[in-house]
Amino acid sequence: MPAKEQITDWFKSLQNSICASLEEADGKAKFEEDNWIREEGGGGRTRILQKGNVIEKGGVNFSAVYGKLPEQILSYTLQTKITTNYKLQIPDFYATGVSIVIHPLSPMVPVIHMNVRYFEMSTGEWWFGGGIDLTPHYIDEADAAFFHTSLKQACDKHHTNYYPDFKKWADDYFFITHRKETRGIGGIFFDKLTQHENGATKEQLFTFVQEIGNLFAPVYTSLIHKNKNKPYTEENKQWQLLRRGRYVEFNLIYDKGTRFGLETNGRVESILMSLPQTADWFYNYTPPPNSPEEKTLLLLKKGIDWITLKRKVL
Amino acid sequence: MPAKEQITDWFKSLQNSICASLEEADGKAKFEEDNWIREEGGGGRTRILQKGNVIEKGGVNFSAVYGKLPEQILSYTLQTKITTNYKLQIPDFYATGVSIVIHPLSPMVPVIHMNVRYFEMSTGEWWFGGGIDLTPHYIDEADAAFFHTSLKQACDKHHTNYYPDFKKWADDYFFITHRKETRGIGGIFFDKLTQHENGATKEQLFTFVQEIGNLFAPVYTSLIHKNKNKPYTEENKQWQLLRRGRYVEFNLIYDKGTRFGLETNGRVESILMSLPQTADWFYNYTPPPNSPEEKTLLLLKKGIDWITLKRKVL
Repeated sequence: MPAKEQITDWFKSLQNSICASLEEADGKAKFEEDNWIREEGGGGRTRILQKGNVIEKGGVNFSAVYGKLPEQILSYTLQTKITTNYKLQIPDFYATGVSIVIHPLSPMVPVIHMNVRYFEMSTGEWWFGGGIDLTPHYIDEADAAFFHTSLKQACDKHHTNYYPDFKKWADDYFFITHRKETRGIGGIFFDKLTQHENGATKEQLFTFVQEIGNLFAPVYTSLIHKNKNKPYTEENKQWQLLRRGRYVEFNLIYDKGTRFGLETNGRVESILMSLPQTADWFYNYTPPPNSPEEKTLLLLKKGIDWITLKRKVL
Repeated sequence: MPAKEQITDWFKSLQNSICASLEEADGKAKFEEDNWIREEGGGGRTRILQKGNVIEKGGVNFSAVYGKLPEQILSYTLQTKITTNYKLQIPDFYATGVSIVIHPLSPMVPVIHMNVRYFEMSTGEWWFGGGIDLTPHYIDEADAAFFHTSLKQACDKHHTNYYPDFKKWADDYFFITHRKETRGIGGIFFDKLTQHENGATKEQLFTFVQEIGNLFAPVYTSLIHKNKNKPYTEENKQWQLLRRGRYVEFNLIYDKGTRFGLETNGRVESILMSLPQTADWFYNYTPPPNSPEEKTLLLLKKGIDWITLKRKVL
């Protein structure tokens, strides 16, 4: 059974290999590293790449933090019944993971996000969580099918329920409720994967999380290479800035990781590396009829089967 | 005793007079108006000015909405005990007000926000609320003293406790907790001002709210005229964009009006008119020592007496 040290080491090596792949794909800028220490225990290795050829701003963060379970985690992660029992003796926790958000310079290259994480407590409870989702400024259906097919193939190796279940979870999670828009074309999202719930062993779940982590670099660099040299106009750039505004809205209003990090006195600059270098808000912008922008907006919906390009009737 | 119709009419006329003053001060752009209807009752008159000489993006919104009290207001505005009593019979509410946020083009002109509002219920309860705060990209101590002195003089006409109490309330409210920074130099903030609590009549409280509303145009246009022709550099502009990023963080994460509006299915584009046209995030930006940016950052603190420029020991 993989111990937390083994999982931690693997996340660290994942950060290294992804940074190397992204630097190669970018061809110009290098990641800068900031090591930080968490006062209550643990710390992280934040890596940020700015002003590249392809990547305008991107972060690949590793962290491993531990100590007494903060009150906010207690109420956030546990059932009320359990919380009450813990009031007498607060357990220790250990949490480690890798978080990535890449904002490309070109509006023709999609934004990508990935997070893989592991959590355990001195009570013996543990789980894996994670997700990967793609936010194209312009939805290219072939790219969408490629992205989702890659995820499905990776998931199917482990459990045939994973892709459909985690794809729906991503649709529900990466949703900008007040705009009634998805953030992008979704992907997969999963949380609290543990032995008790789905029959898989810890070893098997770790292998699944590794599979997802390893998928990131080949899938995203392939999307970079395919799209990075496409020409674009000033209008395309404006639309990208507006879509980035929506990304900011999602991350600051809805994203649980962001809010949780800020509320528990996390390292602000590491958490908010997910925000783009520049974002715009135009009052009441509506794309022209039949424009590529309108087409994209009409596809920012839950329940689309990106592999067959059919929308489920919900 | 002023009825809701009288208060509503006054807010409408305040919107008109402020828009006229801002158009005159801008000298180029005009407000565009969108009338909107709230399905459950009432509606609003959103006015947005974009790409002016002085104002890059600004909104002056009037609304008057009514109907059955939404569940979110019930829990937001009332005590638990009262909420429980209301479960059998949900009261009607009526809410009206004017909300303003102005993002100027020049980093030398401060951002300003004002809100004045009135709320009543069929139970007979009613209150006024509001606030006005200034967010300079660069803090000019003379401007700060002028702004706070104007507020103090207006408040002092009504109650000598108002300025100190509401100034402290603004310091606490307009605070970006995760950055440990105030949004700007504060101003005043007040909520649930009603007859029962402070001895003033409804008439007197309405007169106070009118006094604050009427203060907006002369104070802000004076700051515009003083600062609009100051030269600025590319670095000043970059700093402005970064400070606007902080404004976005405050509004999307902490501002109660914004979150409440989005959660209760308010008109998104009217609520988010408070966001600037463009905002930036640079990873881990630290102003150079002794720079004007550092000086401003060091002054983004609670408890500064901007009139005498002394910081209270807290």
